Amino acid sequence: MSHEKLRDLRCRLGEIADVSAAISLLRWDQETYMPPKAASGRGQQLATLSAIGHRLLTAPELGRILHELNDSSDQLDADDAKLVSETLYDVTRAAKLPESFVKEFEETSSQAYEAWVTARKESQFAVFQPHLEKIVGLVRQKADYLGYADSPYDALVEDFERGMTASELHRLFTELAPRLSALVARIVAKPEGDDPEWLKGNWEESARWDMSVRVLRDMGYNFAAGRQDRSVHPFTMEMGLEDVRVTTRLSPDRLFDGLTASLHEGGHALYDQGFQEKDRRTTLAAGPSLGIHESQSRLWENMIGRSLPFWNYYTPMLREHFPSQLAGVEAEDVYRALNRVHPSLIRVEADECTYNLHIIVRFEIERALIEGQAKVSEIPEFWNAKITEYLGLAVPDDARGCLQDIHWSHGAVGYFPTYALGNLYAAQLFEAILRDIPDLWSHVEHGDFRPLLSWLRTHIHQYGRRKTAGELVRDASGQTPSNEPFLTYLTGKYGELYGL
Amino acid sequence: MSHEKLRDLRCRLGEIADVSAAISLLRWDQETYMPPKAASGRGQQLATLSAIGHRLLTAPELGRILHELNDSSDQLDADDAKLVSETLYDVTRAAKLPESFVKEFEETSSQAYEAWVTARKESQFAVFQPHLEKIVGLVRQKADYLGYADSPYDALVEDFERGMTASELHRLFTELAPRLSALVARIVAKPEGDDPEWLKGNWEESARWDMSVRVLRDMGYNFAAGRQDRSVHPFTMEMGLEDVRVTTRLSPDRLFDGLTASLHEGGHALYDQGFQEKDRRTTLAAGPSLGIHESQSRLWENMIGRSLPFWNYYTPMLREHFPSQLAGVEAEDVYRALNRVHPSLIRVEADECTYNLHIIVRFEIERALIEGQAKVSEIPEFWNAKITEYLGLAVPDDARGCLQDIHWSHGAVGYFPTYALGNLYAAQLFEAILRDIPDLWSHVEHGDFRPLLSWLRTHIHQYGRRKTAGELVRDASGQTPSNEPFLTYLTGKYGELYGL
Repeated sequence: MSHEKLRDLRCRLGEIADVSAAISLLRWDQETYMPPKAASGRGQQLATLSAIGHRLLTAPELGRILHELNDSSDQLDADDAKLVSETLYDVTRAAKLPESFVKEFEETSSQAYEAWVTARKESQFAVFQPHLEKIVGLVRQKADYLGYADSPYDALVEDFERGMTASELHRLFTELAPRLSALVARIVAKPEGDDPEWLKGNWEESARWDMSVRVLRDMGYNFAAGRQDRSVHPFTMEMGLEDVRVTTRLSPDRLFDGLTASLHEGGHALYDQGFQEKDRRTTLAAGPSLGIHESQSRLWENMIGRSLPFWNYYTPMLREHFPSQLAGVEAEDVYRALNRVHPSLIRVEADECTYNLHIIVRFEIERALIEGQAKVSEIPEFWNAKITEYLGLAVPDDARGCLQDIHWSHGAVGYFPTYALGNLYAAQLFEAILRDIPDLWSHVEHGDFRPLLSWLRTHIHQYGRRKTAGELVRDASGQTPSNEPFLTYLTGKYGELYGL
Repeated sequence: MSHEKLRDLRCRLGEIADVSAAISLLRWDQETYMPPKAASGRGQQLATLSAIGHRLLTAPELGRILHELNDSSDQLDADDAKLVSETLYDVTRAAKLPESFVKEFEETSSQAYEAWVTARKESQFAVFQPHLEKIVGLVRQKADYLGYADSPYDALVEDFERGMTASELHRLFTELAPRLSALVARIVAKPEGDDPEWLKGNWEESARWDMSVRVLRDMGYNFAAGRQDRSVHPFTMEMGLEDVRVTTRLSPDRLFDGLTASLHEGGHALYDQGFQEKDRRTTLAAGPSLGIHESQSRLWENMIGRSLPFWNYYTPMLREHFPSQLAGVEAEDVYRALNRVHPSLIRVEADECTYNLHIIVRFEIERALIEGQAKVSEIPEFWNAKITEYLGLAVPDDARGCLQDIHWSHGAVGYFPTYALGNLYAAQLFEAILRDIPDLWSHVEHGDFRPLLSWLRTHIHQYGRRKTAGELVRDASGQTPSNEPFLTYLTGKYGELYGL
């Protein structure tokens, strides 16, 4: 009886996973190889497949099966019970949004995205404002559909970081912000020259491409179940357990951007390649939150890829690729070049110490918008004041201010905090990793990432959605998530680098 | 009233087109960039999306709308009436096949394909035989579901060449075969040496790639609405009017294979890029039959790409790419090298004179299988005898005999004849083109294909499915389709080449 229903459930989840995979491929192609004139048709294809996916997820028959299985969940083994409860969570949530609303949301955000592109190019917030007003109206409506106890922002952040709330984020961030600002102030007070001369110039592409592929392979990324391509903005796309693709970029004047992108996306991809085979095409083959996913990318990008032992191994290789341009450049030089701290206007270019301050600015603004304490028209002023407060900088124009990020144009409100949480989780997990693998650095120094990957597979990847973000971090580190490990990590690393 | 129904119809057809586009992208990716381990997951994704497409096409509500519109078709303009009748044709046909049958068919042919790959590699028909027996059983069942007046083969060929029948094909082919055989016999009787020395050797890839892109662009292929990539077997894939992609291959020891593949696929692609904008995402944006589609590819590949004027223009360019390897090679040399006639075992390598004989062998065998006059176990013997009869060759093994083609493993019975029809249609259309554009060759000789493309757009492409294959050929050429123009074309061209 249960067996038959479970088979039916898995069959339906397989269909839903297949539709999601098709959507992922349409998106991957859109950013990599799609011919330019195909853009508007691609938008329609994505809208249609999203609607079909929503229809499959909210099919009454699926709901009925899930409720029946859930009612007799004592007859299920732990994995099946989890599969049922997690799917029921998704279905219940999806069913709260009428299909007409989903469609309106997609159409509105599609137009808002176009407006944002123009607005950013012209640095004119006014072009984006009416669209963002519609978006804010819709996400508030979405919060009402989804329901919430405390703040409507809670209902939105739930989509990205399940269980997280506005008040918990507020608590974390009000503790974090002044301590980060204080650290940055101490660093900035230290005299530091310009970027070193050797970092300037143009860098041949194919050598950098080969380096980034080499690093991905060394990390343990499986190229038989994935591939790397180029795109304007690097991303990871998952089309099933055996097809997890990354992209990177290679700006001619930036020696390290392709490599750090590959490390970051490689971290995401190793997670997606590390779910259990038995979870294939089911709800469980996913991370529990974007924050946890980001912890994986940031751990590889920053804790590993911006460490001295990492560059002890890779600097000679890099020098071989660029013998004249990098003559005399040592690991220590690269390490210092990659870890320069200076407050800047653009989030995606921010260093480890200032990055979370950028996020906190966005969180404060979007929370105020959703809770009705600020109006869309007030965003530029709000933004500029906050950047001055946290980073001590004057914002010269909206393109380098409140128009720099794509997220709000997509209707993604409540997304930004997951970046900051990713950094917090990464530091907390890394503290545990260094405790559990005392000789980690000597492995890294020899380009051997197997102990690290094995730890991540064991403590994080294999669980999929079996544990929440909080459970994963707590079980792996022995502590509930907090700001402390991140601040300890930064203070240690940058204290040494800047001689504080 | 009709207006609202038409809008509903177009909305549903748009969804169906979007699902088809996603399927096309999944297939394109499968043959170009997909990582190897993704293969089995990709099969499931394709099966799911095909089932969803079938479900959308056979939705009762769509049938109801179509019947209502069809009943009052006198109130519709000609285009809308055509849209309704063509869609009703598709829906009625799809509805005859139960979804369980569609699924069984897909699973069986998926297994048959795997078996065929092994069988061909090992040249063991016995490995493929039980699978092909299942396939033949299923396609006969399919014929019964679909219904037919005369032969069950008629019901199958209808999928690929609507309106065509076994007896009509038999009439055409029994007339064609002896005349082709006689022509080939006269050619073979002429003494001819080996391939010229200059044709041997290894050919650098990037120059050949650039040449093939150049030719595609010259043909009028729009790279803003398409792209070319590499694959093992060249193909064209259409994901909507603004996204029609081709692939080519570049074997290191074959100077011309990439170029002829680009010409062939370019011919298909120009057709798909040439449908009317107003037919976007509807039933009408397609060719009426595979034979007509193939006529476009063969016309560009053979009538143009294997002509002397074409090589008068491109030989100097080719020589520039390979100055030492092609020193002293003239257009006439290339023209002769590309038009050597010699009976061979492999269809895809066959010249223009012997190609259709390969098809006739396959037609006779598959018709006999479907009509119950032959058993699957008898195929190798049947095949080998026919190859000896038509081409005078002994088949050394099944890999170079009845196992060489993929089609039957996919369950595509009734497909092969469309290749032969493509050649017939192409010759008949080309006769009309030379009549309508008397100075065609002087344009071709200057790399100017605009008059040709314009003729094809006017007489073929723009109609989509508004005309049947027969109507297109008759309206464009003034004659019903027949063997004569093809035989006249071959006799003229090869009579001159071989001094018959």
